[in-house]
Amino acid sequence: MRNLKITLAYDGFDFRGWQVQPSQSTVQGLLGAAVERVTGERLLPQGSGRTDAGVHALAQVASCAIESPIPVANLVVALNDVLPPAVRVLAIEEASPDFHARASAKAKTYRYRIWRDALCPPFLARYVYHHPYPLDEGAMAEAAGAVVGEHDFTSLAAADPERGREAQEVSNVRTIFSSAWQREGEEMLYTVRGNGFLHHMVRNLVGTFLLMGKGSLRPANMTGILQAKSRSAAGPTAPAHGLYLVSVEY
Amino acid sequence: MRNLKITLAYDGFDFRGWQVQPSQSTVQGLLGAAVERVTGERLLPQGSGRTDAGVHALAQVASCAIESPIPVANLVVALNDVLPPAVRVLAIEEASPDFHARASAKAKTYRYRIWRDALCPPFLARYVYHHPYPLDEGAMAEAAGAVVGEHDFTSLAAADPERGREAQEVSNVRTIFSSAWQREGEEMLYTVRGNGFLHHMVRNLVGTFLLMGKGSLRPANMTGILQAKSRSAAGPTAPAHGLYLVSVEY
Repeated sequence: MRNLKITLAYDGFDFRGWQVQPSQSTVQGLLGAAVERVTGERLLPQGSGRTDAGVHALAQVASCAIESPIPVANLVVALNDVLPPAVRVLAIEEASPDFHARASAKAKTYRYRIWRDALCPPFLARYVYHHPYPLDEGAMAEAAGAVVGEHDFTSLAAADPERGREAQEVSNVRTIFSSAWQREGEEMLYTVRGNGFLHHMVRNLVGTFLLMGKGSLRPANMTGILQAKSRSAAGPTAPAHGLYLVSVEY
Repeated sequence: MRNLKITLAYDGFDFRGWQVQPSQSTVQGLLGAAVERVTGERLLPQGSGRTDAGVHALAQVASCAIESPIPVANLVVALNDVLPPAVRVLAIEEASPDFHARASAKAKTYRYRIWRDALCPPFLARYVYHHPYPLDEGAMAEAAGAVVGEHDFTSLAAADPERGREAQEVSNVRTIFSSAWQREGEEMLYTVRGNGFLHHMVRNLVGTFLLMGKGSLRPANMTGILQAKSRSAAGPTAPAHGLYLVSVEY
């Protein structure tokens, strides 16, 4: 038995997210079907985490144990032949037997793209959130800095319907290593790196920063929002299609 | 009555082309519906030409006569509010009463994008033709140069099911002002500017150049292909999603 580390990129706009679902097009489902078609083995590659419907990935990581002796380079080519063009396997490596894409992850980086110009080119419509209205970008930068460090992010976490009651009691404390906005032409890019992220956490952070950009909240409110440990204290969930899973570190 | 010149861009991947069709999503149909919703006037904007299903436009031009006194700047905003994000009105200008997007056009420029790397990023899959196999790019450049000038392009024209018998007898002579390939990183870009293009002509040119790139035909065959005045003398039709209508000149 070999254990593989699969790195893949996807345009998530047309998928129902990462996690396999009956009669829905999901990245995990497509990857599992591709592995089965190539190796004859029925298995479900485990992702570093689920991405929501519409969320993109520049380098999602999945792990799976297979019997097939097919060399990794050939497996990359064979899987890409079978997968739709919106999902591409970038690399496959042999991993140690105890490697697990989710459990072994040490850090993840996400990015959120906001398009600021009055007109959003049609070729970007699937890949950025178009928000052409006035924003106080300084306030958003300040608020982004305020979440760096170890915090309980309950206020920024969606109630996850797929986690049972027991799991809901698991800690919502996460450590954010960096969190910052940058400007690139007509785009505002938010990049956040942390040791883990709760369900909808990055989209809820962006939705909260946007309220600060609009002046509905002030950056100084960020501490109180975290302390409230209540979803209703924070802002709305920003649209999925502006979000990218950039990388997973092990 | 005012006559308007409407410039628009679209990601054509999910549309059934430009021309309105019953119960199909077409750019002309969407634009007509948007004009009706904004002005209450039922009309069909006339395009500079039809683009096929899957073909993109950086600056398609349409003309239409309307009664509404709405200022052009407001009309741009109102139409973009109603249109899907994959279609954007870039500009609207008042035109002279005799302006017609198709009949008044003096020249058009098209571009075709081919992605050469072994892996095509998922975010480009809708926007380039992925062809990672060996190509003699010098031969393709030579063949592209051979179509510059005035020629009968019957060999490169699809039999157009929507042109009647009479129309089929209309001249297939067109003048190509420039025709060249260039390299940009992993992309090969073909740009062609001419006084008019027949149905499928650019995609058939690219399909023919690809045969020369593969060595199935030689650039010196280009003259014979044009002289044959037979569709079967030329190469296959390249995929629609690599093609862009870049601009229309008046």
